[in-house]
Formats: sequence, C-alpha cells, structure tokens
Amino acid sequence: MPEPAFQDYYPENVSHCYGCGSLNALGLRIRTRWEGDESVTRFTPRPEHTAIPGFVYGGLLASLVDCHSTGTAAAAMYRQEGRAMDTLPAYRFVTASLHVDYLAPTPLGVELEVRGRVKRIEGRKVVVEATVSALGKVTARGEVVAAQMREGFGQV
Amino acid sequence: MPEPAFQDYYPENVSHCYGCGSLNALGLRIRTRWEGDESVTRFTPRPEHTAIPGFVYGGLLASLVDCHSTGTAAAAMYRQEGRAMDTLPAYRFVTASLHVDYLAPTPLGVELEVRGRVKRIEGRKVVVEATVSALGKVTARGEVVAAQMREGFGQV
Repeated sequence: MPEPAFQDYYPENVSHCYGCGSLNALGLRIRTRWEGDESVTRFTPRPEHTAIPGFVYGGLLASLVDCHSTGTAAAAMYRQEGRAMDTLPAYRFVTASLHVDYLAPTPLGVELEVRGRVKRIEGRKVVVEATVSALGKVTARGEVVAAQMREGFGQV
Repeated sequence: MPEPAFQDYYPENVSHCYGCGSLNALGLRIRTRWEGDESVTRFTPRPEHTAIPGFVYGGLLASLVDCHSTGTAAAAMYRQEGRAMDTLPAYRFVTASLHVDYLAPTPLGVELEVRGRVKRIEGRKVVVEATVSALGKVTARGEVVAAQMREGFGQV
C-alpha cells in the first residue's frame, strides 16, 4: 500500500477543495508526499486542461502549485513541531498569495511533477517555493504564502 | 444581441483554452468586454469550485484572473493600434507571470466580477491589474504579465 498523502489527513470539512479535496468528485484530488526535504505531487492533466492544443493551461498549473503548497505548509508545521499528521489539533492552511512564473510551454499528455520546498516559517505563515516539471524540464516556478486557517473560517 | 466578447474574436487554434476557449466544452468559457477603460468578466463558479464549503477555490480565481488578463492584453493591443479585433494579424497573449493576493474569502454561489486595467504596455508585453469582487466587495487582487504569443507557438 502506498504511503498516505498529506491530503489523507485533512479533516472532513476541508476535504471538499477542488484542487486537493478527496471528497470533491469533480476536482483534481492531488496527493502530496515528502521525499526527503521536498514535497512532491504527481498529476497528469486531463485533455480539457488545454491552453493551446498540446499544452497545459496555466490556470491548472497555478491550481497545482496552490494546493501543493498549502499542503506542504501544513505538513511542514507538523514537522516543525515533531507531530504526526494524524494528531490534533489539525493544521490547515489557506493561500494568502500565489505567484507563478511560466518559463516554457508545458506539454499536455504526460505526468507533471510538482516539487516544493519550505522557504521559511514565520509564525502562522509558511512560504513555499515550488517547481512544475514535465519530462524532466522545469516549465513553471511558483511561490505561495500560506496562512494558517483561523478557527471558524468558513463557518458562516 | 449582446456585444461580442474579446474571446469571440480569437482564432480557432486558440479557442480551446480551458479558461477562455469557446470550443472547450468542459472549460470555463469566460467572456470579457470593455466597459470604458476597464475590462469586465462576469462568471458564476460551479458548485465544485469549492475551497472550504461555501467559498470559492483560489485556483479558480487565479484561472479567472489569468484568462481575463490575457484577453485584456490582446484587446488593449488592438486598441493601441486603433484596430478592430476582427482585423488581421490576430493578437493573442500567453501568461508570462501571474500573481494573486487573496484578500478575503470569496463566497460561492454568486456571480463574480473580474475587472481589469492595463497598467502598461512594453513592446510585446502587457501588464494587467485585475480585481475579483463578490457582492460588491473585492476579495482578490491580481497582476498578470502577458506576452504576445510568438509565431509558431504550439505548432509541434
């Protein structure tokens, strides 16, 4: 059985996200794991995730960087505290800002690899750098400032 | 009949984009028009575009800002040249970089308004600022550097 992903530990109320929620049947349902000090998500875009025919839509790449990075932020916070991800209180992060530089067209039809590194942790904020690669070449580079979700967020 | 949108003038080969392509049946198919000096896209996210239940997924907001801004860049270039969008050569822009600041949770279930302004045109690059509003409140602010697509892009 494969090692659980960060997203497997998300509480039910934060498992509906279009990008990473295991309960969103129409979403991307990305899964992220540590590989040493880097977090890794592998995802194959769907045919409709087209920009120009044959190339991946930039908004999809931004979405991958976004959820990959908020997941990495949560996992990094557990790591910093020496806690397993199935212990309470649960950490969950939202995106404060997202930046993506598109370096080269990303081919559609192959598995993409998103790799993240924690740049710094500042109180309740975690800054994550990420790259997106296709066929071994980095095609996009992103940075996300993830903020720990406050209690009661989304309880309207 | 409503005024045509920028996207109605896109050549067929760039009408497959997940965000703005009229030929992408599964995509967002956003439509953008000038209102004075601002470009405006109105879009109601689908139920699956969830972050936390009741709120819009940040990756979707990034996607709206992205395609809204590349469309605005193209329209701005025609305007600068005093040309109608149905004249040749056709302008089409790709995203060089995308930045989004998430200012407040964006409620799901209402129409969003994306408003863009051209910040500057530098040769083949157009910098577009955009806001996303829900119920009259700005919830996200973005900036896109759009680059004029080179001849032959996507012809592999």
